[in-house]
Amino acid sequence: MRTVRVGLLGLGVVGSAVARAILEDHGMAERSGVRLELAKAAVRDLSKKRAVNLPAGLLTADPAEVVNDPQISIVVELMGGENPAFDLISSALSSGKHVISANKEVLAKRGDALLTVASEAGKRLVYEASVGGGVPILNPISDDLLANRLNSIRAIINGTTNYILTRMSSEGAAYDAVLQDAQQLGYAEADPTADVDGFDAVYKIAILGRLAFGTSAAVEGIHREGIGRIAARDFRYADELGFTIKLVAAAQRTPEGLLLRVHPSLVPLDVPMASVNGAMNMVEIEGDLVGPLWLQGAGAGPEPTASAVLGDVLRVARGLDGPGSVVSARVQSLPVAPMSGHICQYYIRLTASDRPGVLAQVAKVLGDAAISIRSVIQMDTDAESGRADLVIMTHSALEANMQEAATKLRGLDVVVELDNLLRVESYGQAT
Amino acid sequence: MRTVRVGLLGLGVVGSAVARAILEDHGMAERSGVRLELAKAAVRDLSKKRAVNLPAGLLTADPAEVVNDPQISIVVELMGGENPAFDLISSALSSGKHVISANKEVLAKRGDALLTVASEAGKRLVYEASVGGGVPILNPISDDLLANRLNSIRAIINGTTNYILTRMSSEGAAYDAVLQDAQQLGYAEADPTADVDGFDAVYKIAILGRLAFGTSAAVEGIHREGIGRIAARDFRYADELGFTIKLVAAAQRTPEGLLLRVHPSLVPLDVPMASVNGAMNMVEIEGDLVGPLWLQGAGAGPEPTASAVLGDVLRVARGLDGPGSVVSARVQSLPVAPMSGHICQYYIRLTASDRPGVLAQVAKVLGDAAISIRSVIQMDTDAESGRADLVIMTHSALEANMQEAATKLRGLDVVVELDNLLRVESYGQAT
Repeated sequence: MRTVRVGLLGLGVVGSAVARAILEDHGMAERSGVRLELAKAAVRDLSKKRAVNLPAGLLTADPAEVVNDPQISIVVELMGGENPAFDLISSALSSGKHVISANKEVLAKRGDALLTVASEAGKRLVYEASVGGGVPILNPISDDLLANRLNSIRAIINGTTNYILTRMSSEGAAYDAVLQDAQQLGYAEADPTADVDGFDAVYKIAILGRLAFGTSAAVEGIHREGIGRIAARDFRYADELGFTIKLVAAAQRTPEGLLLRVHPSLVPLDVPMASVNGAMNMVEIEGDLVGPLWLQGAGAGPEPTASAVLGDVLRVARGLDGPGSVVSARVQSLPVAPMSGHICQYYIRLTASDRPGVLAQVAKVLGDAAISIRSVIQMDTDAESGRADLVIMTHSALEANMQEAATKLRGLDVVVELDNLLRVESYGQAT
Repeated sequence: MRTVRVGLLGLGVVGSAVARAILEDHGMAERSGVRLELAKAAVRDLSKKRAVNLPAGLLTADPAEVVNDPQISIVVELMGGENPAFDLISSALSSGKHVISANKEVLAKRGDALLTVASEAGKRLVYEASVGGGVPILNPISDDLLANRLNSIRAIINGTTNYILTRMSSEGAAYDAVLQDAQQLGYAEADPTADVDGFDAVYKIAILGRLAFGTSAAVEGIHREGIGRIAARDFRYADELGFTIKLVAAAQRTPEGLLLRVHPSLVPLDVPMASVNGAMNMVEIEGDLVGPLWLQGAGAGPEPTASAVLGDVLRVARGLDGPGSVVSARVQSLPVAPMSGHICQYYIRLTASDRPGVLAQVAKVLGDAAISIRSVIQMDTDAESGRADLVIMTHSALEANMQEAATKLRGLDVVVELDNLLRVESYGQAT
């Protein structure tokens, strides 16, 4: 049996799970025909206590010892962040090593450059674990579904926000309260910005957009809205209309090119994405032959992520191709389409004065922007303040028109506040 | 760009979709770096009208012309059935061609022999399309999840029965009526035996059992029950208890070996499998690292199946490994475990005399067999006939004990009929 020596960059919770799985093997060698040997692991702090006991001499504080070790043929990068990961991955590839990475940030921001380095070095850079944790997504897209012209990828790919939204939905709880609880339980970071403001999902959809559509989008240019404006009442109103609310990341082929967007969306209660609860991830992929597919599982966590990392390690160790290597070089890339061209239904929640004539003014603004109203419901009324919640569902409308209308709605005297403007994910026939 | 010549055996609806996709290409060559050329297609009846227009001279009535053509490097077998598919696949492999097959029957019954022929010939035999239509299942198991020791695969892998059960559930309709309607709509065959009696699902779980656990099970030895005994009222009672009913095919690691089973099951309403409706398929895979994964999509139909077939063709054409080649040879296979050792909760529906003391007699039979009752509900009572439906949910019990108890229940004077005995799929903690 062939032995392949693996070096680790980073030994946090995921790195420890990867190291433990390699050391314990539990059938991996038998299944794959390749014996993995953990050759070296670079860490920042040699004295830190870790979840795995490594044999003496394997730890080093100098990542160059991993990147330059001629005995190591596969480097696994699990440090996260753009730097120094970018330099280390580049160095490893240039010095003739294949690289497996779970680092969404460096792959989203610098993936083009890294794939070019890999291509020039004739080495593989594969990164299934960077999107959707343990759920196989990148490899199915670049391998199993290769006969398909893909039309659309929509995903719940941030476990933290899905955990928060699920609890808001099931408990009727407020965003701030659930966020605090999620932080205490370890589902959200002390600084939750990367998750709740959608940056993490943006990185992942940028990676999917490049892999599936050949489109290199600057992450700053991807439309991004977080979940901070969602209120408990939005779930209540959405439910009455037949929807739930999810943070959706989408990459969709449009006549103008590839539209990339990350924002909370109303999702019909009867589609698979609506039932993805807690920290689970789901990716919905639509191809011209296969139709819609849904891949669901644990999107984070040490062991699920290790499953994806080691799947890549074994794939490369067995001499196979892998995600990232196929589409990147050969497909004519779609240009990035502007968000202003997006067409969908909208859910509008307004706090308005509870008096006659309000709806006429609101409807006129929408009508002037060529937006048809599908339904209007006056929800909770507060007699004391003389205010009412007005929930409007529109027919399909153009994003540019809706943004223009939203500005005008905010300017109306009778509108106290435009509390929320949410897009509706469309399925099947346009409405 | 390299050109790879492909020969087809069979040009039915799936074959026509494969041929059309190859002829039209729509970006496949660009995405994969390989140009497929349709070299020849063998059919039974040359004069039959087909859904695809082939260039002149491509059709032949002699499959040997495909199998022996030295210009053809990949043979796609889409004839179905055990014979003559077995001989043709063997011949193709022996004469140096890779083979892609969507034929669940020949792979379930003769897969071991065919994989041996492939191994001896040094050629690939891959068959993603044989299970779950367009949903990537075999390749994720043998590639992406290779680091995992798999514990369990449970699946809805027969679209016909899931269509029938979904309609019975949503409409409260009777089995016979829905079956007839399904036949008229083309969802069920004129002779529906292969689907409704579970043979099709048995073939597919046999393939999954070999691929994932290295177990070669004779299809006749796999526990199989069809859906013909399910009544509309079973859905009503199951729903009250928090379940729906699905035809489940399972391959699960147990202390005695691999338990393979196909039968209708009560599935908790809050797990992903419960929401798989219509002709959709879903496979639930549980690995030691990744935890549970769910893969869902169209399990049949010409284009989805062509997606899987062509995914395999391109994988082999690009020189990659593929499903079937990894696990079959290298893993120590689990023995087949007997169904009598299965442990689960049971749903029992009895027609009983509506008089005092009935429950005492029924409970005594169960108690004597070491089966604890979780709940009993007396459902619809018919005053005229003096009969009542008794629905019993048990705690976890041993299959052997339950079958013994079922025989005794049938023998009780107070039991008019044991209408249904359904197993409950367990999730998480045992009860």
